[in-house]
Amino acid sequence: MERRLLLLLPPLCLCWALSAGGAERSGPPNLLILLMDDMGWGDLGVFGEPSRETPNLDQMAAEGMLFPNFYTANPLCSPSRAALLTGRLPIRNGFYTTNAHARNAYTPQEIVGGIPGSELLLPELLKKAGYVSKIIGKWHLGHRPQFHPLKHGFDEWFGSPNCHFGPYDNKATPNIPVYRDREMIGRYYEDFKINLKTGEANLTQIYLQEALDFISRQQASHQPFFLYWAIDATHAPVYASKQFLGTSQRGLYGDAVREIDDSIGKILKSLQNLGISENTFVFFTSDNGAALISAPKQGGSNGRFLCGKQTTFEGGMREPAIAWWPGHIPAGHVSHQLGNVMDLFTTSLSLAGLQPPSDRQIDGIDLSPAILQGKLIDRPIFYYRGNEMMAVRLGLYKAHYWTWSNSWEQFSQGIDFCPGQNISGVTTHTQEEHTKLPLLFHLGRDPGEKYLISFSSYEYQEVMEQISPKVQLHKETMVPGEPQLNVCDKAVMNWAPPGCEKLGKCLEPPKSNPKKCFWPH
Amino acid sequence: MERRLLLLLPPLCLCWALSAGGAERSGPPNLLILLMDDMGWGDLGVFGEPSRETPNLDQMAAEGMLFPNFYTANPLCSPSRAALLTGRLPIRNGFYTTNAHARNAYTPQEIVGGIPGSELLLPELLKKAGYVSKIIGKWHLGHRPQFHPLKHGFDEWFGSPNCHFGPYDNKATPNIPVYRDREMIGRYYEDFKINLKTGEANLTQIYLQEALDFISRQQASHQPFFLYWAIDATHAPVYASKQFLGTSQRGLYGDAVREIDDSIGKILKSLQNLGISENTFVFFTSDNGAALISAPKQGGSNGRFLCGKQTTFEGGMREPAIAWWPGHIPAGHVSHQLGNVMDLFTTSLSLAGLQPPSDRQIDGIDLSPAILQGKLIDRPIFYYRGNEMMAVRLGLYKAHYWTWSNSWEQFSQGIDFCPGQNISGVTTHTQEEHTKLPLLFHLGRDPGEKYLISFSSYEYQEVMEQISPKVQLHKETMVPGEPQLNVCDKAVMNWAPPGCEKLGKCLEPPKSNPKKCFWPH
Repeated sequence: MERRLLLLLPPLCLCWALSAGGAERSGPPNLLILLMDDMGWGDLGVFGEPSRETPNLDQMAAEGMLFPNFYTANPLCSPSRAALLTGRLPIRNGFYTTNAHARNAYTPQEIVGGIPGSELLLPELLKKAGYVSKIIGKWHLGHRPQFHPLKHGFDEWFGSPNCHFGPYDNKATPNIPVYRDREMIGRYYEDFKINLKTGEANLTQIYLQEALDFISRQQASHQPFFLYWAIDATHAPVYASKQFLGTSQRGLYGDAVREIDDSIGKILKSLQNLGISENTFVFFTSDNGAALISAPKQGGSNGRFLCGKQTTFEGGMREPAIAWWPGHIPAGHVSHQLGNVMDLFTTSLSLAGLQPPSDRQIDGIDLSPAILQGKLIDRPIFYYRGNEMMAVRLGLYKAHYWTWSNSWEQFSQGIDFCPGQNISGVTTHTQEEHTKLPLLFHLGRDPGEKYLISFSSYEYQEVMEQISPKVQLHKETMVPGEPQLNVCDKAVMNWAPPGCEKLGKCLEPPKSNPKKCFWPH
Repeated sequence: MERRLLLLLPPLCLCWALSAGGAERSGPPNLLILLMDDMGWGDLGVFGEPSRETPNLDQMAAEGMLFPNFYTANPLCSPSRAALLTGRLPIRNGFYTTNAHARNAYTPQEIVGGIPGSELLLPELLKKAGYVSKIIGKWHLGHRPQFHPLKHGFDEWFGSPNCHFGPYDNKATPNIPVYRDREMIGRYYEDFKINLKTGEANLTQIYLQEALDFISRQQASHQPFFLYWAIDATHAPVYASKQFLGTSQRGLYGDAVREIDDSIGKILKSLQNLGISENTFVFFTSDNGAALISAPKQGGSNGRFLCGKQTTFEGGMREPAIAWWPGHIPAGHVSHQLGNVMDLFTTSLSLAGLQPPSDRQIDGIDLSPAILQGKLIDRPIFYYRGNEMMAVRLGLYKAHYWTWSNSWEQFSQGIDFCPGQNISGVTTHTQEEHTKLPLLFHLGRDPGEKYLISFSSYEYQEVMEQISPKVQLHKETMVPGEPQLNVCDKAVMNWAPPGCEKLGKCLEPPKSNPKKCFWPH
């Protein structure tokens, strides 16, 4: 290696002058976050899906900026979403478990906890700049009333508190409720149908209409808006509307992607038609890698990356990402900035003219210099699984301090987070500690994490000399929040959500019996 | 499965009216084939390479038509190139071996054979329409004088008869000569330097200049031209010019890709500057999948496809492909047409207003309806390894009749065509016959060939009912050509190529000792 600054990104930096000029927009931009559920990096045509069935997202990238190096903060839904909305690692905001080492936890119906009241969420903060905020789709930060979106800064909500998947209408436990604002208006499978046999459900169309209505309404009101469009059609059980069923090369999963792509095309078009596209910052990404345990019929693609959801390999944590803001973001550019869903918190505040809270550690950085001026900001990416920092990325290098795909017990039952992939000593079925001698990979020439850099090489030594102090500082200064995902209790399920009386949909909860949640992954 | 016509491609057919109008071009178009060496499907930004370091190829796709389902006729250089130039499967044109079952053979220096005189090559046929043809780069259809390009229809040649890799300047055997037309003008490592330590070589720049000079000269002559730009910088040992060394995120391999991408940008720009872009049909593709045995430092990426070069899995045979012809091919379209390098033969003839030979079986089809009118032509893809049809693709389905990655013997020596990938019963290290019950995959929802379709499923039965007769017909009507790659002899190496006397570079050949070539893969 001749070059000294191994960790620097290569000299393809795209620099341009911000062309915003003295455009006619006044006040801060609207903010629109399009968050996918279990959609993988490789699911977009622009990221190499062979079927290329995302013409609208590909067009969004052609008109905006593509981020091939964008990450989640945790390879599972709930902690990823908590990180996005707080700008903080789950280990800080409490969205993790200490019931066992390095286990991903989330918020099923039995979970007692949720987003702590002490956390400051993006919509709460945006209020200071006059924003009206709405969440459409999956919340997943706690389903008990004190955790609901409207208790945490959102003004409106249409969607569900938990994943639509459980309990599959099994009668023994309540079906997930769907809320409008503070009250439930029905339940999945009962009032909001998902045909598990055919995969037919018109939910994406409903979520689309909710978005179009909100945008149109807000445009008329002249208040800036924050819309968090957190749809879930690509989370198993995958679904699509009748008009999209059977239209993809990829089966039902592809049908769901096509419907989402079509919807996003309509949302962007509505911004243009309403004349507010130049005043609306839009960011598309996903909550975690594709769920390969559900592939190929119910799961997506992480391209050539290793493994999937639940793991801290690239397939579990690297996300598709596109920023779009006509007139502000130059069209067709690619940014190699290392980004994270937590940055959407800080960046959104920055675009709104607000400072992030100064009384707590914020992990998200302000990406506006990367997005608007093509700058590259040096920062590490930390890969957490539950309460453990498993890996870190710095520049093009990634060091694994712990490796684990999933347990032998689960693997032997056919649960495989890395189907068809097997990297000796890397995709381990026992939790392997490498803190003394981390496994190092170069993600530029080896995005698939297949080729270990030799421990005895000069490259290894030089790179680890740069990574180690950053990891040490991170660990030394880490003050974990109180874990919120340790206790489960069947009594807290959605038996009788607010509004159930009006619908005659209240169910009788069982007696409380709190116990430690079991997190297998 | 509800739909009856399982094998039909999905209803994303892009239809348009050919906008050629009465454009001012007269006579047939120039033909420019850009053939890469060991470049993989996944090496282009537009096919999902995370570094996205191919802006010119991505732009070529944006201005032209992308083919995500394009194949080679054999997963190794020589037979692939023989197929491209003859429009025929290697088993017909003789570019295969019968020394062992299902072994890929090529043309190293010891090979006695080459392209048979009875084969009709594209440039020979194009003469009838007044074309002037040039090959720049690697020929690989036989290095003995009777096999040279100028004996097979090319008017000009600048390049080498064999791969630049052997014998690495080892003094015991002759270095590969570089020819201008009929005579050698030097040898690799002696007159055309490749620094194996740094990877520095300016060959791509030389090949670029040759192309620009030829195009410019031909433009002035007003004769149509066929330029076959068959460069080899991405074949190990990979090389790049000084100005590109160290500029990629991907190491030396990426540097080579960047230089090629830059060169292609310059070639397309020259067509535009000379005002002949609307009269020049350009097609970009590669000879076989990325050589994963050389990855990551000397080998590329096959994206999410299985295995690489030498195998009949998708990673070995699916190729990046782009057609570009401003004013004729609509910009930014994707064609899901199943294509093959052999189609370049037939399509080129068609564009030149010529018929393919009627006295022999031609396997390539005329893609112009797909390229110019967005039609989808139903056709199978046959995957050959040496003398065996290993697999067939029909629509979105692929059936493996034989599987083999490589031998246990080689595998135990560290030669791995599928690094990090292991699909039980599929990536086999013994040649496994499945002719009675082929392994079936759906390449739409499972491009990685990971999920076997159950033999007992309705889908399997229905699909195999359509595939089986096509395979039977193919096998019954197959008349193999005489194998040309069976005999090796050190005496035939490039000891004393034509022109060596003038340069004082003639070497003394050893006594002839022909024997059966050994093909390990």
